Amino acid sequence: MNDFIYLSDLFGTVVFAISGALAAGRLRMDPFGVLVLAGVTAVGGGTVRDAILGATPVFWITDTLYVWLITITAAVVMLLVRCPRKLSGRWFQVADAFGLAVFTVIGAQKALSYGAEPIIAVMMGTMTGVLGGLIRDVLCREVPLVLRTEIYATACIVGGIVYTGALSLNLAPIPAMCLAMVGTLVLRLIGIFFHLSLPAFALDNSSK
Amino acid sequence: MNDFIYLSDLFGTVVFAISGALAAGRLRMDPFGVLVLAGVTAVGGGTVRDAILGATPVFWITDTLYVWLITITAAVVMLLVRCPRKLSGRWFQVADAFGLAVFTVIGAQKALSYGAEPIIAVMMGTMTGVLGGLIRDVLCREVPLVLRTEIYATACIVGGIVYTGALSLNLAPIPAMCLAMVGTLVLRLIGIFFHLSLPAFALDNSSK
Amino acid sequence: MNDFIYLSDLFGTVVFAISGALAAGRLRMDPFGVLVLAGVTAVGGGTVRDAILGATPVFWITDTLYVWLITITAAVVMLLVRCPRKLSGRWFQVADAFGLAVFTVIGAQKALSYGAEPIIAVMMGTMTGVLGGLIRDVLCREVPLVLRTEIYATACIVGGIVYTGALSLNLAPIPAMCLAMVGTLVLRLIGIFFHLSLPAFALDNSSK
Repeated sequence: MNDFIYLSDLFGTVVFAISGALAAGRLRMDPFGVLVLAGVTAVGGGTVRDAILGATPVFWITDTLYVWLITITAAVVMLLVRCPRKLSGRWFQVADAFGLAVFTVIGAQKALSYGAEPIIAVMMGTMTGVLGGLIRDVLCREVPLVLRTEIYATACIVGGIVYTGALSLNLAPIPAMCLAMVGTLVLRLIGIFFHLSLPAFALDNSSK
Repeated sequence: MNDFIYLSDLFGTVVFAISGALAAGRLRMDPFGVLVLAGVTAVGGGTVRDAILGATPVFWITDTLYVWLITITAAVVMLLVRCPRKLSGRWFQVADAFGLAVFTVIGAQKALSYGAEPIIAVMMGTMTGVLGGLIRDVLCREVPLVLRTEIYATACIVGGIVYTGALSLNLAPIPAMCLAMVGTLVLRLIGIFFHLSLPAFALDNSSK
Repeated sequence: MNDFIYLSDLFGTVVFAISGALAAGRLRMDPFGVLVLAGVTAVGGGTVRDAILGATPVFWITDTLYVWLITITAAVVMLLVRCPRKLSGRWFQVADAFGLAVFTVIGAQKALSYGAEPIIAVMMGTMTGVLGGLIRDVLCREVPLVLRTEIYATACIVGGIVYTGALSLNLAPIPAMCLAMVGTLVLRLIGIFFHLSLPAFALDNSSK
């Protein structure tokens, strides 16, 4: 099972790196920019999580496989992709949702292993899932999509609550992880296929 | 007195969280965006300070009250606030100024407790006070206001100098803290009520 | 030789601080904004590097000379500079290239001293060289130049590879450092004088 989690983590890293590389391509960045955006999207969330928890050196310093995977992914995207549409279709969003689910559970689990309370674990899981994409958007000079669109971060929060809740109900770690991953994934897929968003909190500046 | 500082810190956290939630509302973010902006504004400065000092896990990991307060504040703002004007009036700015003063002194004190020199303590106090708002503005895609407006960061710098100066003159910690808080507060209030700004450093790009 | 590296580091800090202060001046920031942009540009890369490596408190906490230099540089730029053209000429770019080379080698060396693999050392060197300027651009609300222009980050990457490669060929540390600095510098100067850029990765959003 640990192997499954690790392989899922690597898979999520590649998917997130692709989404970063595509964002770089849309802004006509040079190869270094593509590499930076791929890397930031893929490991940005986990890096900040580790810095906040004091889990330094952060995870990709000791396991260089992440950096190699991101570099190869960025290179392959630059060489092969000419039409981004193919990669932003439905199946890519499903892969992205799977990555989101894995990252969330791994983040929550790492926080707990550092002795954090459940609410912090939920936060750290969500941060691991969404912060990379958020930094990517800031670098692309956009108001981060995740702050105002669809059920994205919400899926992470629910996944984190399911995970910590299941553990506190004395479920074994592996089933708790699976349950939380399935929960995050299903909720995110619902968001994708039905274009569901939470209602926005809109303040009217022109109100009297 | 320590209780007073702690309660002031919590009060400042709530005020800063409100200002983050309002910024999110102006950009019509979803509830997650409101939560993120509230959190970033309230504890962003202290988080970076702790990461730089190596004071990890950062403060809100071990004391979850901060995260609960931010969550509740964000929820209350979303449920109750319809007209932001009411909350951006004079009295809210005064509350914000009080939060700024507390954050500054706490930041400077934490740096000193980690063995930093006075100049670093002044920096860390200022960072604790203004960095959260600065990250909020970056997420909202604005050139951070604090970098070009009114006496805001300046009040923090002066407060930090008063604090470290008073300590080096052998004032006891509590009076030094009070003196520095009053100094920051008064200077910031002068900035608010007289709309004082430091002269800008303006380079003319079209100059010959 | 260690003295030479340290003095070069201080020189690079001043040059990078000037470039940050000028960016602040172009946006008509107040003196605090000038200070922040000077500081972020000069030590931003090294700060994130140290936080990721767990080398906390970060370097400028223990050696306050960096903060003093940045403060003085920001003040001098504000007092003396009226026409930014003079400072963005050829000779300033050469000084900037020299700073870039020093920062790269220092960053790579620090990563190795924390037991990182060569690929991580190359990354950390590059991060030390370019991240400060990147954060500066984000604060100025620009898509970071380094992500889409000229041979800049590429020079750092090559410098890092030369450094770690030379060490793995059993070259002594000092010659390896010099070789890597010269490599970075030459490549960057070629970029400056011939306006060379890597080909951009441009995705056409309107493609069918």
